[in-house]
Amino acid sequence: MLPAAHLDPESHTPLYRQLYAHVRDCIDSGLLRAGDRLPPTRDLAGQLGLNRTTISAAWALLESEGLIRGHVGRGSFVTRGARAEGLAWSALLPEQEPRPAVAPARISFAASRPSELLFPTDAFRDSCEEVIRSEEARVILQLGSPAGYRPLREFLLERGREEGIVGDNDDVLVTSGIQQAFDLLQRVLISNGETVVTEDPVYAGLTSVLRRAGANLVGVPTGDDGIDLQALERVAAREKPRLMVITSNFQNPTGATLNMEARERVLGIVRACGAVLVENDSYGDLVYEGAKLPTIRQLDDHGDTVLLRSFSKLAFPGLRTGWVIGPRLLLARLTEAKQVSDLHTDQLSQAVLLRFAASGRLAEHREHVLRECGRRLRAAITACEEFLPRDCSFTRPRGGMNLWIRLPQPLDAGELLARAEREGVNYVPGRVFAVSRSHAGALRLSFAQLTPEEIRAGIEILGRIFGTELQRVRRIERLEPAQALV
Amino acid sequence: MLPAAHLDPESHTPLYRQLYAHVRDCIDSGLLRAGDRLPPTRDLAGQLGLNRTTISAAWALLESEGLIRGHVGRGSFVTRGARAEGLAWSALLPEQEPRPAVAPARISFAASRPSELLFPTDAFRDSCEEVIRSEEARVILQLGSPAGYRPLREFLLERGREEGIVGDNDDVLVTSGIQQAFDLLQRVLISNGETVVTEDPVYAGLTSVLRRAGANLVGVPTGDDGIDLQALERVAAREKPRLMVITSNFQNPTGATLNMEARERVLGIVRACGAVLVENDSYGDLVYEGAKLPTIRQLDDHGDTVLLRSFSKLAFPGLRTGWVIGPRLLLARLTEAKQVSDLHTDQLSQAVLLRFAASGRLAEHREHVLRECGRRLRAAITACEEFLPRDCSFTRPRGGMNLWIRLPQPLDAGELLARAEREGVNYVPGRVFAVSRSHAGALRLSFAQLTPEEIRAGIEILGRIFGTELQRVRRIERLEPAQALV
Repeated sequence: MLPAAHLDPESHTPLYRQLYAHVRDCIDSGLLRAGDRLPPTRDLAGQLGLNRTTISAAWALLESEGLIRGHVGRGSFVTRGARAEGLAWSALLPEQEPRPAVAPARISFAASRPSELLFPTDAFRDSCEEVIRSEEARVILQLGSPAGYRPLREFLLERGREEGIVGDNDDVLVTSGIQQAFDLLQRVLISNGETVVTEDPVYAGLTSVLRRAGANLVGVPTGDDGIDLQALERVAAREKPRLMVITSNFQNPTGATLNMEARERVLGIVRACGAVLVENDSYGDLVYEGAKLPTIRQLDDHGDTVLLRSFSKLAFPGLRTGWVIGPRLLLARLTEAKQVSDLHTDQLSQAVLLRFAASGRLAEHREHVLRECGRRLRAAITACEEFLPRDCSFTRPRGGMNLWIRLPQPLDAGELLARAEREGVNYVPGRVFAVSRSHAGALRLSFAQLTPEEIRAGIEILGRIFGTELQRVRRIERLEPAQALV
Repeated sequence: MLPAAHLDPESHTPLYRQLYAHVRDCIDSGLLRAGDRLPPTRDLAGQLGLNRTTISAAWALLESEGLIRGHVGRGSFVTRGARAEGLAWSALLPEQEPRPAVAPARISFAASRPSELLFPTDAFRDSCEEVIRSEEARVILQLGSPAGYRPLREFLLERGREEGIVGDNDDVLVTSGIQQAFDLLQRVLISNGETVVTEDPVYAGLTSVLRRAGANLVGVPTGDDGIDLQALERVAAREKPRLMVITSNFQNPTGATLNMEARERVLGIVRACGAVLVENDSYGDLVYEGAKLPTIRQLDDHGDTVLLRSFSKLAFPGLRTGWVIGPRLLLARLTEAKQVSDLHTDQLSQAVLLRFAASGRLAEHREHVLRECGRRLRAAITACEEFLPRDCSFTRPRGGMNLWIRLPQPLDAGELLARAEREGVNYVPGRVFAVSRSHAGALRLSFAQLTPEEIRAGIEILGRIFGTELQRVRRIERLEPAQALV
């Protein structure tokens, strides 16, 4: 693809400069076009009788001028064409990680979010109208504070004090959902390959943030009772992590909850290793059976634990409002990072959600959600017991939005998804939540969006697919005699 | 502060390990406390008769275990105390850059934002009520798409096609204001010290994003007619920047606008150097006099220019909604970065602003704003001509929200701010907008928030302060005879 180069070893101009000028001229004249790939240095060195380092030096110079761009494992590409051509965006942009896509389905277990049918739209309308008719409307429409809309912050601090999670040295920051809280924590605390310990499996939105930041991610096995405490202790002592992110209630994707003793032990482990503990409490409100346990932050006398919460799992995830509670010093930095990111969170939604909560409508709606989602959870567990093959195991949470199903060996939940989709059912394969292990044999079943009837029908279909596949592979295993060792 | 160490040079344990163990024991026992500073390596090396590299090795080991943390220029600090103590946040967090703070004032020229008094609150209420009463309400309240609320995106694309700024290969992404657009562009295009060329002076929200990302920031002088094109051409050829950020209309802080010829030349310069051009068009709607010029994106046949826009300067900056128009390939990456940052922009505000724009209310409001802000601009220019000392110079924009005033040597606008604040007036000193030059003698006057009467009164006060100070320093200059050269 590169037109032949005629280089002169006798010239005063070094060979790498001659090669550089040749390629640059080819680009300027249009002989090489944006997006063209240059020959591998090894091949070209052979052809031209040059040392590979000469080629590399020429390429480095071309790259420094923005004419070409190297991609590890793919070679170097021309980034712009002759002066008359536009930019070669595909060569200019970093490589894209493939995103797992789950196709829409008639019965979708794929989204961990509330059902639209449960949205209290009248209560929302009333809250919204009260806000826009109030004297505060002009304030809300004007540029606000990076820390959040003041009346909402005061409300959250006051509630936090009552609950025993806000002390004198603490503060609150309103974020555009918990996803942004993760992002801001990364910006302030993780910059240079620091180690972060998370549950494994864990919410992919968390690992995306941390991987992009180049964090050294260490996943600790997480099962029916939450994170494995012995493993956590070992990892903490060995890795001395900067950050530990733990979900105490109804973890996504497993649905697992830490009991009181486990909460205390996590706190002890964190103190011993000096890490910053982030407690992700997205699902803490959604307790359908039994008592609500105190958060780890509530147990933490030092007030070092950073607590993340949101309105999104109870109501209105389309209104992006979450918040962070933690030590004032940290919160000041997070607030700065927030200002650089997007100035501040949308104020109309902050004001409407404040009205919704302060008026008592949120508490009323919560009762309704707990009743309805409790029925959905029971339908899901009953259907799993009834329809899943006996060798499957699954978590039995008492709240939240998710069950975690482990298929027997050698079934692969990712491969079986296509079959489920053909029958109008979907879910998210375990691989999507992987940190240090693959979870190929597991899947997340998000039940909160579906009616009990849909849940039952969907799990019946999944049970049949998994059962049929299991019979098929077992038959093959029986038919194939074990190979003799020779 | 470090208790005396008794190290044994005869031991099998290397000296750095002995020193490490000593410090660790001091921390565990509480002799050293969280936040304590360790002695400088040079001093300690002298005291203990050790090589400085021995001390450094011990410190490195302590740091790898998260027990201490080094801060360039400040030394190393203990990050956690004895097991019973909490985290030492001040030692754990990165150093804080001091943020310039402008105190509130009776007549504030400090914020480049619209006046609350001009907000069309009735039109906003009507738009909001139409949205929350529509069938779409449930969709808006549910989790949405990272690219933005579909009806708003379609509206923006359609308007963009009519204006000739959206072609077949283009797309749009809704962001939480233009600030977030800057942040996402940085995340996708700047990761490793790439060079970015901006106007100098320029909006501090842009330089914050780029500095935090470690970009190599090069500012090009920007005066009454916008960016200096000769300087831009030289810098582009020399630096081969990755990114160039240009404001074509009513630049913040100078208020300067590029004429047609300059827009064409910017495009030529960008093409010649292969940079990505980002056109920040925050103020493009606010033309009070004369014709509206086409954006650079409109002149760009290749469609490579990335255009940033927002509703915030016309109405409702508290509703954080902006958008990016550009090539589909780039937009796909920006959309991914958006999802990792905060999932998506608030949908209630997106829907309300769409309704506000599509109903014709925005166009009606724009007429009102142009009339009112035009009066404000004229009041500002007239007052500057009347009250500023003759040696001051200032820009004379035909739109936007800002004037840029240059005081005569040796006046410092930052120092004089305190005096203005005592008289109830404020502004933002030029230093805040500095890229490669200091702009100590300049200041930004944002007039859009104030009535013509307030503008006149405020500039009269400033003119008096600047004039008095100028007389004072000139008198001193006259009194002090030039020193003889010896």
